[in-house]
Amino acid sequence: MRFVRYGEAGRERPGMLDAEGRLRDLSGVIPDLAGTVLAKLPSIDPKGLPLVEGEPRLGPPVGQVGKFICIGLNYSDHAAETGMSAPDHPIVFMKATSAICGPNDTILLPRGSEKTDWEVELGVVIGKPAKYVSEAEALNHVAGYCVINDVSERSFQIDLSGQWTKGKSCDTFGPIGPWLVTPDEIGDLDALEMTLDVNGERMQNGTSGTMIFTVPQIICHLSQLMSLQPGDVIATGTPPGVGMGMSPQRFLKEGDEVVAEIKGLGQQQLSVARDS
Amino acid sequence: MRFVRYGEAGRERPGMLDAEGRLRDLSGVIPDLAGTVLAKLPSIDPKGLPLVEGEPRLGPPVGQVGKFICIGLNYSDHAAETGMSAPDHPIVFMKATSAICGPNDTILLPRGSEKTDWEVELGVVIGKPAKYVSEAEALNHVAGYCVINDVSERSFQIDLSGQWTKGKSCDTFGPIGPWLVTPDEIGDLDALEMTLDVNGERMQNGTSGTMIFTVPQIICHLSQLMSLQPGDVIATGTPPGVGMGMSPQRFLKEGDEVVAEIKGLGQQQLSVARDS
Repeated sequence: MRFVRYGEAGRERPGMLDAEGRLRDLSGVIPDLAGTVLAKLPSIDPKGLPLVEGEPRLGPPVGQVGKFICIGLNYSDHAAETGMSAPDHPIVFMKATSAICGPNDTILLPRGSEKTDWEVELGVVIGKPAKYVSEAEALNHVAGYCVINDVSERSFQIDLSGQWTKGKSCDTFGPIGPWLVTPDEIGDLDALEMTLDVNGERMQNGTSGTMIFTVPQIICHLSQLMSLQPGDVIATGTPPGVGMGMSPQRFLKEGDEVVAEIKGLGQQQLSVARDS
Repeated sequence: MRFVRYGEAGRERPGMLDAEGRLRDLSGVIPDLAGTVLAKLPSIDPKGLPLVEGEPRLGPPVGQVGKFICIGLNYSDHAAETGMSAPDHPIVFMKATSAICGPNDTILLPRGSEKTDWEVELGVVIGKPAKYVSEAEALNHVAGYCVINDVSERSFQIDLSGQWTKGKSCDTFGPIGPWLVTPDEIGDLDALEMTLDVNGERMQNGTSGTMIFTVPQIICHLSQLMSLQPGDVIATGTPPGVGMGMSPQRFLKEGDEVVAEIKGLGQQQLSVARDS
């Protein structure tokens, strides 16, 4: 099942795609795709839900995100391109939840930015509270999966006295979606094809198969450190091909078009502009 | 004016202390001390509000916290005790909002913890959205101030492959309160006395006067990196006297009593237990 949130930013309504890919309104059934509702998605029946006219804007497919947790350097081939060694434990940092935007919104280059980079990532949305869970139990706590672009301003991240959250939290630096896809539709979690293009040129081309820490390992690890709550979002790291790792380095500029896709999870189409 | 949230965890009601220090119920006037309400606190008149009977539990004095942002190594004398040099820019990391608890709740030592430490800090609660604000404008965006204990598990923070958020985000690691104090009552922001005792022994004894980056500088800096929203909380760093900096090092153990206080902002009284 593929769920979406659609409408004006900050006022999105819940919806879902039916078997024919048509958008149907869920607002008569659930208040939002958020919180404890996320544990009940499999019981929702799209039959008889009203069709939505036109092509409304899509927002992030999960609302009221409590924590936006990211795993750093989690692909062996990406760690290599950054010149850093693979970590012994998952590297954890947070993005500001205020960075979240929709999958086809505009990435705004913040004032003073010089090195804004892309990172297509597999996103995990928590559906049930998780604390001290084992790897074997971990996936039972997942509501679904989505595409995330962990947009990163490298000069803020690296040159401003440290802790990565600085370069990860700018407004619009967290496009999520288009869809929240339930686990039964995801296929093999260790073989998801992930790509990212800038202006039609392929930059990232990877697979979740090169993740150093798997999704169950990440959930297990995080749940030893903090409780995970319904609506928490985990970005699980990026495959190779970020601009920082190229020679010469390449970064986003005004007018660029960024297309990020994970097979089965849909495609983001983001334009780039300067923040005013 | 001193505002509180009182009652059962997760179901707190807004309240305030009147001139005589009596607790009065605000739930007939505002839904919660959260979001856009935080910009309107000065207009609230305690006269005629119902008195609250008994001594209910106090929760964190701000609800629906969107971001829990922390500034690291922000006291020149604390940076010295950790053996790290003073940073060129504020060090920024995030605590999980799920770590937030009330000022007199129990600090739970998480499974596997070995080095849980204390950090009394001046907390800043944002009242109005702030983006690209100048130092001169920064304080206009503050709803009030509070005591925060930035409880930190040093083994998670330092030994688990990095990014400090790991050791900062455990459940109960963010006691906030007792009060949210409006700026007109805070006095000199650069001369706040801050103390922390463990089992009656003075561990931290500092003043906001040794902050490397002032509150206006911090708000200005953060607002260049991300938008600050009403209800965001900033912990501005800790003065010297943390357990990690002692020789030999000292950390919290089951049964300890931690008292943290900032003059004019009230006192936290926290007990320590092992998480089950």
